[in-house]
Amino acid sequence: MSDVARLMGVGVGPGDPELLTLKAMRALRDADVVAHFAKAGHVSRGRAIAADHIRPNAIELPLLYPVTTEIAKGAPAYCAKIAAFHDACAAAVAAHLDARRAVAVICEGDPLFYGSYMHLHVRLAARYPTEVIAGVTGMSGCWSAAGAPMAQGDDVFTVLPGTLAEDELARRLADADAAAVMKLGRNLPKVRRALERAGRLGRAIYVERGTMADAVVMRLSDKPDDCAPYFATVLVAGWEGRP
Amino acid sequence: MSDVARLMGVGVGPGDPELLTLKAMRALRDADVVAHFAKAGHVSRGRAIAADHIRPNAIELPLLYPVTTEIAKGAPAYCAKIAAFHDACAAAVAAHLDARRAVAVICEGDPLFYGSYMHLHVRLAARYPTEVIAGVTGMSGCWSAAGAPMAQGDDVFTVLPGTLAEDELARRLADADAAAVMKLGRNLPKVRRALERAGRLGRAIYVERGTMADAVVMRLSDKPDDCAPYFATVLVAGWEGRP
Repeated sequence: MSDVARLMGVGVGPGDPELLTLKAMRALRDADVVAHFAKAGHVSRGRAIAADHIRPNAIELPLLYPVTTEIAKGAPAYCAKIAAFHDACAAAVAAHLDARRAVAVICEGDPLFYGSYMHLHVRLAARYPTEVIAGVTGMSGCWSAAGAPMAQGDDVFTVLPGTLAEDELARRLADADAAAVMKLGRNLPKVRRALERAGRLGRAIYVERGTMADAVVMRLSDKPDDCAPYFATVLVAGWEGRP
Repeated sequence: MSDVARLMGVGVGPGDPELLTLKAMRALRDADVVAHFAKAGHVSRGRAIAADHIRPNAIELPLLYPVTTEIAKGAPAYCAKIAAFHDACAAAVAAHLDARRAVAVICEGDPLFYGSYMHLHVRLAARYPTEVIAGVTGMSGCWSAAGAPMAQGDDVFTVLPGTLAEDELARRLADADAAAVMKLGRNLPKVRRALERAGRLGRAIYVERGTMADAVVMRLSDKPDDCAPYFATVLVAGWEGRP
């Protein structure tokens, strides 16, 4: 027992357990409580990455997203349900902090970059001593696996969600030297059209499970179908666009 | 001696030696040769981060940027001198690879994200077995130190060099949900004006040496002067802009 309340957002990197930092390892070993987000009925991917470093006697606190497939995303009922879920998670974490425990919240990638931990951070960081441990992002894992020189010198780099409208994607892809497009899934045909309109399809690289043994890395133009998991990424490297 | 030619671009993270990954640690311990970029007359910052993990009997290969202050950056003479320097670095690394040595090139942050290693990668990766080990970026280190929730959900995030023209900076800052502006130095007054024009000055955070013990983190609007080192960063977090 640490006997000191401490909230730690712990980035565990993109998937390869070796891409964990020494600092994350130490935080997990110091933690009285290890919390991790997952979809109900699924194993937490972050927990799987960090499994070797969780103490056997640590208290585990799974934070399980409610199943919301029957409610349209973006609808007020969806937002209310998710906000209530995050409130409940923050209360569960706060109960451990009030009992003077050190709580590590496991985050895939980097905690403050598109991560669920942020929902706890904005609710708790002003009230408790808090430390955020940066992690290797999923996109770094992808371009490292692809060996794609992403951005250099005065390049403008941008991260785009595949959920944007096609016109918006095309405009932004044409306006940046380098880009990573996330949240592919059913958005892939639209992303492909936007890349073509922006003149960037020829250099686009498609990556699935970038840092895992079964990684898929190929030119998007060589990918024959438009089936992609939600967590696949398209990269447009800036290097070739430079003089 | 590994007796196998292998080029490794090794991300060692943003500055805190604890933000090194287990994979980077292993690569450094496996390396016959450890190469690191620095300005002539300066110690390599990457080498300092990784110092504890370099084997005492490793061959060290410092790659020292020529002093070019008398030539204007962007001028043809500057570009030619830098290209010749990178050619010479690649040749020096290739000589070790041809002698079947494993060469680790130390990279601050992430190797393929605004790093010097990329100049070696584009010259050598097609000719030798190459592995890129992703690292925690400098910008992740900065927003973690600041506790700034950077990007979430469908946010568009962009990285901008402070060297861009003021109009261009203002346009791009207004067009993104979240941004990191790098290469401040003498560009800080211009970046400040661009943030004001984009309506983002109030939320801009100024960070120096994000992951070090002597880190400086403050609201940019509270910073009284326009003195900034080249490697300082301004962050505009997306969270507060979300509904």
